[in-house]
Amino acid sequence: MQIDTPYLMFLGDVPDHLAAKTAYGIADWRPDWCVGQLRLPGCAADLDIPDLTLAEAVERGCRTMVIGVVNAGGVLPDHWVAEIVAALEAGLDVASGLHVRLGSVPAIAAAAKARGRRLHDVRHTTESFATGKGTKRPGLRLLTVGTDCSVGKKYTVLALERGMRARGLDAEFRATGQTGVFISGRGAAIDAVVADFISGAVEWISPAADPNHWDLIEGQGSLFHPSFAGVSLGLLHGAQPDAFVVCHEPTRTTMRGVEHPLPTIAAVIDMTIRLGRLTNPGIRPVGIAVNTQALSEDEARRTLDAIAAEHDLPATDPVRFGVDGLVDRLVAEFPAAGASA
Amino acid sequence: MQIDTPYLMFLGDVPDHLAAKTAYGIADWRPDWCVGQLRLPGCAADLDIPDLTLAEAVERGCRTMVIGVVNAGGVLPDHWVAEIVAALEAGLDVASGLHVRLGSVPAIAAAAKARGRRLHDVRHTTESFATGKGTKRPGLRLLTVGTDCSVGKKYTVLALERGMRARGLDAEFRATGQTGVFISGRGAAIDAVVADFISGAVEWISPAADPNHWDLIEGQGSLFHPSFAGVSLGLLHGAQPDAFVVCHEPTRTTMRGVEHPLPTIAAVIDMTIRLGRLTNPGIRPVGIAVNTQALSEDEARRTLDAIAAEHDLPATDPVRFGVDGLVDRLVAEFPAAGASA
Repeated sequence: MQIDTPYLMFLGDVPDHLAAKTAYGIADWRPDWCVGQLRLPGCAADLDIPDLTLAEAVERGCRTMVIGVVNAGGVLPDHWVAEIVAALEAGLDVASGLHVRLGSVPAIAAAAKARGRRLHDVRHTTESFATGKGTKRPGLRLLTVGTDCSVGKKYTVLALERGMRARGLDAEFRATGQTGVFISGRGAAIDAVVADFISGAVEWISPAADPNHWDLIEGQGSLFHPSFAGVSLGLLHGAQPDAFVVCHEPTRTTMRGVEHPLPTIAAVIDMTIRLGRLTNPGIRPVGIAVNTQALSEDEARRTLDAIAAEHDLPATDPVRFGVDGLVDRLVAEFPAAGASA
Repeated sequence: MQIDTPYLMFLGDVPDHLAAKTAYGIADWRPDWCVGQLRLPGCAADLDIPDLTLAEAVERGCRTMVIGVVNAGGVLPDHWVAEIVAALEAGLDVASGLHVRLGSVPAIAAAAKARGRRLHDVRHTTESFATGKGTKRPGLRLLTVGTDCSVGKKYTVLALERGMRARGLDAEFRATGQTGVFISGRGAAIDAVVADFISGAVEWISPAADPNHWDLIEGQGSLFHPSFAGVSLGLLHGAQPDAFVVCHEPTRTTMRGVEHPLPTIAAVIDMTIRLGRLTNPGIRPVGIAVNTQALSEDEARRTLDAIAAEHDLPATDPVRFGVDGLVDRLVAEFPAAGASA
């Protein structure tokens, strides 16, 4: 999936900020791509970018209208359909994170066909992947792994992309989830791929590259999560990472959606190396990213210090304290990839 | 997917036995369900069961026509389409192992709709699964795992079903691959499930059961196969097996389709326990099934003796020497499940 940029951000008439969570994520990480927003009467979300009509968006160079909002009830309301059809007729592609497929709505399918525009449903994959080969390919790769789902794996690679680029490193975010696909303009929601093709899809997402180029691959789930470990393992094998960062939320006691206790960070490091060396014998941890949102600053610093000491690795909260320590370790471990001082 | 039995086996006009491999597997393991075969002029396959017309098949109680053959080129030839339509019009459901979906052929879709018959495409899943919960459910479960793909995992559980039933044990084969689904009349091709639902699908395939009932779950792939390990891990977590049997082919040096060396049996046992205890802390190996087809009988016996001694587990070739040793071990390890002498 390759989504043309820049974007017009469609916010509909969502009742709160949470329903536009994906849109906020895109605007945070790709402000240059978010030329404007299109809001309907009653919309409670605001990305703090210009409100544009469809004609204005086209005039300012927008190529794709992005639906980064959730609709109540899973059904596309008629007044959204009308706006999507109008966007297609104005010459924009439309990319959606909704559960319902855009092409399943006859009026949208007809308008896209009539105008030769593309419809992207990032929750679904239409790409036909090969099975994974497991052969080492050129380029450097970093993967975020976790003690659980939703512990900051996407945020950490995006923060690393920003931090590494600021240090002159050649680094690129590689998306494996739906919000990530909007942020990258490319990728696949790996949890929506047919099981046989998980690792093959990741080989496609992160293809062979320059030997000193870093692909920063968004992790998913956890090797210790009973619902999703298969996805995490296929992702690990396909990513064949040289380096990995463990993401963790220190106040959580059970894994998301199930009754299983969280694994220790040490267990995640050990298992990631054991399983990851199948496709990259050199795999190694380079740091730990901790979501300390629930802790005071003092508690956060003490927690990070303790985790760093226990594992002999840099530990940080990327949101609160940045990723300098992680980048330092990467530069030290992989000096050939180069960096400015 | 629940396929009504008994079956009329459609063999078309396949040019050799290999193209009807699935049909032979079904006839071998479910002779009572295979009431007759339907062959077109030029067919080189023969299941050695009565040739029936559609009318005769219906009269003898057939409920489903099974297409357990491969068509050249992936396109359904017109004369097969005509026969499938005729079967639907005669009142049979149709179940297919072809890549092409039956319902994608307009004439077949129309006939099924007009007659209210069901179309089953076992390579595809239409079932909507929940994500796995990982909670322990009642009943006993055995899973076959492997040092590679295609090392006898399906054959071993089917041979165990036969051997355990002969000893008075309550045991049932649970299918996770397409041939297995025909043999079981139920199940799902787990490699065709969307990645997020692998373990959830297995929880559906092997639901809660009587505490002394054995589900014998068909394994897929290998935890050490770089293309498919994610499927194997999701399957392991969903199956939450009490017991597992390692399947192995001793003359193979690299894994199927890739350049990676085969893991050792010891590595497979170790990793299966490490990962499997997430959803079943009591998981243990109960034997090793070795495909000795490439060895002389003497070599086979020596190989099995050596493997048994090395791992302190019964080792057998289920095809050549039966599964008595495996059943003995199961009975010894799980005495409550009971067995006749």
